[in-house]
Amino acid sequence: MKLIVYLSGEIHSDWRDAIVKGSDKLDLPIEFLTPVVTHSASDDAGDVLGKEEKSFWRDHKSAKVNSIRIKTNIEKSDLVIVKFGEKYRQWNAAFDAGFAAAMNKPYIVIHPEDFTHALKEVDAQAMAIATGEDQVIEVLKYVTTQD
Amino acid sequence: MKLIVYLSGEIHSDWRDAIVKGSDKLDLPIEFLTPVVTHSASDDAGDVLGKEEKSFWRDHKSAKVNSIRIKTNIEKSDLVIVKFGEKYRQWNAAFDAGFAAAMNKPYIVIHPEDFTHALKEVDAQAMAIATGEDQVIEVLKYVTTQD
Amino acid sequence: MKLIVYLSGEIHSDWRDAIVKGSDKLDLPIEFLTPVVTHSASDDAGDVLGKEEKSFWRDHKSAKVNSIRIKTNIEKSDLVIVKFGEKYRQWNAAFDAGFAAAMNKPYIVIHPEDFTHALKEVDAQAMAIATGEDQVIEVLKYVTTQD
Amino acid sequence: MKLIVYLSGEIHSDWRDAIVKGSDKLDLPIEFLTPVVTHSASDDAGDVLGKEEKSFWRDHKSAKVNSIRIKTNIEKSDLVIVKFGEKYRQWNAAFDAGFAAAMNKPYIVIHPEDFTHALKEVDAQAMAIATGEDQVIEVLKYVTTQD
Amino acid sequence: MKLIVYLSGEIHSDWRDAIVKGSDKLDLPIEFLTPVVTHSASDDAGDVLGKEEKSFWRDHKSAKVNSIRIKTNIEKSDLVIVKFGEKYRQWNAAFDAGFAAAMNKPYIVIHPEDFTHALKEVDAQAMAIATGEDQVIEVLKYVTTQD
Amino acid sequence: MKLIVYLSGEIHSDWRDAIVKGSDKLDLPIEFLTPVVTHSASDDAGDVLGKEEKSFWRDHKSAKVNSIRIKTNIEKSDLVIVKFGEKYRQWNAAFDAGFAAAMNKPYIVIHPEDFTHALKEVDAQAMAIATGEDQVIEVLKYVTTQD
Amino acid sequence: MKLIVYLSGEIHSDWRDAIVKGSDKLDLPIEFLTPVVTHSASDDAGDVLGKEEKSFWRDHKSAKVNSIRIKTNIEKSDLVIVKFGEKYRQWNAAFDAGFAAAMNKPYIVIHPEDFTHALKEVDAQAMAIATGEDQVIEVLKYVTTQD
Amino acid sequence: MKLIVYLSGEIHSDWRDAIVKGSDKLDLPIEFLTPVVTHSASDDAGDVLGKEEKSFWRDHKSAKVNSIRIKTNIEKSDLVIVKFGEKYRQWNAAFDAGFAAAMNKPYIVIHPEDFTHALKEVDAQAMAIATGEDQVIEVLKYVTTQD
Repeated sequence: MKLIVYLSGEIHSDWRDAIVKGSDKLDLPIEFLTPVVTHSASDDAGDVLGKEEKSFWRDHKSAKVNSIRIKTNIEKSDLVIVKFGEKYRQWNAAFDAGFAAAMNKPYIVIHPEDFTHALKEVDAQAMAIATGEDQVIEVLKYVTTQD
Repeated sequence: MKLIVYLSGEIHSDWRDAIVKGSDKLDLPIEFLTPVVTHSASDDAGDVLGKEEKSFWRDHKSAKVNSIRIKTNIEKSDLVIVKFGEKYRQWNAAFDAGFAAAMNKPYIVIHPEDFTHALKEVDAQAMAIATGEDQVIEVLKYVTTQD
Repeated sequence: MKLIVYLSGEIHSDWRDAIVKGSDKLDLPIEFLTPVVTHSASDDAGDVLGKEEKSFWRDHKSAKVNSIRIKTNIEKSDLVIVKFGEKYRQWNAAFDAGFAAAMNKPYIVIHPEDFTHALKEVDAQAMAIATGEDQVIEVLKYVTTQD
Repeated sequence: MKLIVYLSGEIHSDWRDAIVKGSDKLDLPIEFLTPVVTHSASDDAGDVLGKEEKSFWRDHKSAKVNSIRIKTNIEKSDLVIVKFGEKYRQWNAAFDAGFAAAMNKPYIVIHPEDFTHALKEVDAQAMAIATGEDQVIEVLKYVTTQD
Repeated sequence: MKLIVYLSGEIHSDWRDAIVKGSDKLDLPIEFLTPVVTHSASDDAGDVLGKEEKSFWRDHKSAKVNSIRIKTNIEKSDLVIVKFGEKYRQWNAAFDAGFAAAMNKPYIVIHPEDFTHALKEVDAQAMAIATGEDQVIEVLKYVTTQD
Repeated sequence: MKLIVYLSGEIHSDWRDAIVKGSDKLDLPIEFLTPVVTHSASDDAGDVLGKEEKSFWRDHKSAKVNSIRIKTNIEKSDLVIVKFGEKYRQWNAAFDAGFAAAMNKPYIVIHPEDFTHALKEVDAQAMAIATGEDQVIEVLKYVTTQD
Repeated sequence: MKLIVYLSGEIHSDWRDAIVKGSDKLDLPIEFLTPVVTHSASDDAGDVLGKEEKSFWRDHKSAKVNSIRIKTNIEKSDLVIVKFGEKYRQWNAAFDAGFAAAMNKPYIVIHPEDFTHALKEVDAQAMAIATGEDQVIEVLKYVTTQD
Repeated sequence: MKLIVYLSGEIHSDWRDAIVKGSDKLDLPIEFLTPVVTHSASDDAGDVLGKEEKSFWRDHKSAKVNSIRIKTNIEKSDLVIVKFGEKYRQWNAAFDAGFAAAMNKPYIVIHPEDFTHALKEVDAQAMAIATGEDQVIEVLKYVTTQD
């Protein structure tokens, strides 16, 4: 069973690599999709359309350009993995989870245990709640290989 | 033009009252829908289904019971207002915004200016970004009365 | 907050009355919808379209006539309550739960504790799992009145 | 005409093999999808996410992990085959049938004749009702090869 | 249980009256919707938009104007009744049935027995196949009143 | 038959009044919905959210606020009337027509005859093409009253 | 531009061959899908599921088995061609056209000129109305090759 | 990340070539789809179905034949680029943008700066607003390669 998986969430750490490598090592039949993961490139995404003086509009243009990639990839995926790390607010990750939920598309959440209360609404619609990437790799292995 | 408006976001402050009262004062043809807004009641929502020792499952049950009200109300509404206050992470608010976006349902975001960068993905799909409830009341007045 | 609730499941016991009366007593703003709940009438539903000698076709015709009411009512409802009693196989109840799940419509399951393993797939997509009608009344009260 | 077929239902017998081998023997252009069919693996599916003391939550976690595979595969399929065997309650099979019905996706039911009355609602929305795997193979041959 | 019923099919006979009167006599909680049922008015519907010399375009314009009423009413209805009389080809009735089927909306077919083979595809997706208006009234009574 | 009609298109002339008055005079059972039709108010709609120096962003904010009303009203309507006047480009009118087409919602176009070639793609999906408001009133009368 | 085309309509003549050969000759990038086109096989399709004495149920079972192929193929196709020949009632063809219309999927109708009035509702939603297979081949050539 | 891009808008200039060549030069993983771009062929598209004396019906037939290609390609695409040039009214371009918006499909608009006010409703739902093809190529490069 082939699976297309979108990796949503923070782009400040290398958590996606851990999952992709773990999956590759096990030779799982999974195609991974991501947002743009180079942080500075992501912030500058709209600059090509004309510089903005106000930071609000600069952010706005970049976020919209990024959304082309994000929305297309979520819609193409069978499963979304949403990571909430320790440091950042990651409202975009929660937004992606809500987007997946409304599309009746399964998603898995990764977060530290102490976020349980704050993330309870996001967890409530998830198909799995993991504390680390290793658990996600196990789930992906099981779902695709029955093992 | 009648409007059904869902008020999503933090339940620790009385921001919903400001909007509802402002709307009532202007006699706007708006029906407001909300999640359960009593914080402790919201946290206890699942207890009637059986006590849980682990806080994870207690939160999980409560969040699911609350989602019955939230999902029904978002689907019934024409417009969603999503408030991000200073204090809390409000991942559920971002989740609701993503849910609305996937349903192609318009939403308005309220947040302090210093959240602009962190909320850029949520703002990007919004139909209006306000810094306070007074602005939202003005928009609601305009949308429903053309004035 | 008004709610339209469909009561799916066995028609051999009076569990629906318990919920409707409990809701009425509390004056909850809920409209209840049901399938045809007179057992013999339900089995005879297709006879008016012509008698059948084979019991398969008699059942088939009756089930389709009943499905007009069931499908319409599930689609009109905001929430589905699915009851699994001790005695019957209740495949139709599980079918209705799957139907609701595919429509992203919240549902609550009622079943005895010893059905937990057999019903785990149905429970997995539910917003609440209750062991009795009294718990459901409490949830309905909370969802509609915040109390 | 290529066909993607999901095989839903009991995982205690080898009925899927009969269909897959029958189809392979005839060289039918069909891709078969299944849930995880190793029973113990299926029950343990959620354990990797953390052990649970209560059997309810253990089942709950496993059922959700399994649902990732089930939902994805039903959505990818053109046709669902739902088998009800003699022994088990198979509420998950009825749930899958309801899920397919709500998506307007054709499904075929296999069950012994004495289940006719109990399964009438599930049969009512089916495109074919078979008593054995051999009949299903014939239908698959006809649908894909016109023969 | 209230029901909105669309009466599709031939406009040369008064079969709709039989159903509406039968329903009124029984005081059924049903709202009936229809296409324009005055035959000549229906054929002239597009003339107000400018006369056409070619009968093809005259028919085309009228059919499109009529479709505004037909499509709106089918979408508003919970149930569609499709009548095939003895005389006419009634391709529009079969078209409406296909439209309802694609929307997963239940429909009932009325036709003489000798049309069984020619209408088998239309019957196959129907929730009931009647030979006369009296049977339909019985079904409507049962569905709305459980009696 | 009640009808909800959205009147899309130029807000520089009083064409909407002609239709609403014509409908009222005939006592048609129609509810009319419109965008904000005061031109200056429409252009200023976003100002309450904070002044913008660049006219692009001022227009952008106003257009988004206006879209809340437009999208909600198109979704609520059964029929959309789209007017293309002599003077303006009316790209928003064509946009609304495309929006309605994608939702499979019927629309009527009003335009002068010399726009036929330029508007052929918009006309192609319309249910009626009128040259004036009087024709539209006739169509509305016919559709709602069969007369 | 690749195109998937479903050929709906009568299975008593070889009109599909004319289109497929015409397309092949021009080397058009089109994949054609069809129902089962062997008439007797089509009528017998349900026999494998058990013989029926009543011709109604025999037809019913066969029509449902055939619908698996028909529905799947219409959903997979980008364009539907619906042929109405001189001899048969072809209600199934009109049904398929209605099914396509509800899915907002373009379809082309082929029929003799004297059917214009009777087929006006089916023609009204079509993207092209042809009198012969040669015209359809020309349209397919144009749509896929711009020539 | 592969992307399917539909290029909507004027067919009088070679703006599509600029984008396709720019993309090819950068070896971007993009498949481009277009309407028929030979202007005269596009205007004659319906002639094969029978000559029309009235230019209205000639245009109508051609526009419908063209819509087969346009609608199919928009639905297949992940992203729509809509170009508004200096000379033409391009109502079809605005129509395509509205069609994409209703489908929640991202689109990019290209137009000269002086069209800002007239196109504000179309821009409001866009994911990027460009003034030239070079900017679009940059955005496509970024979205597909993160660079």
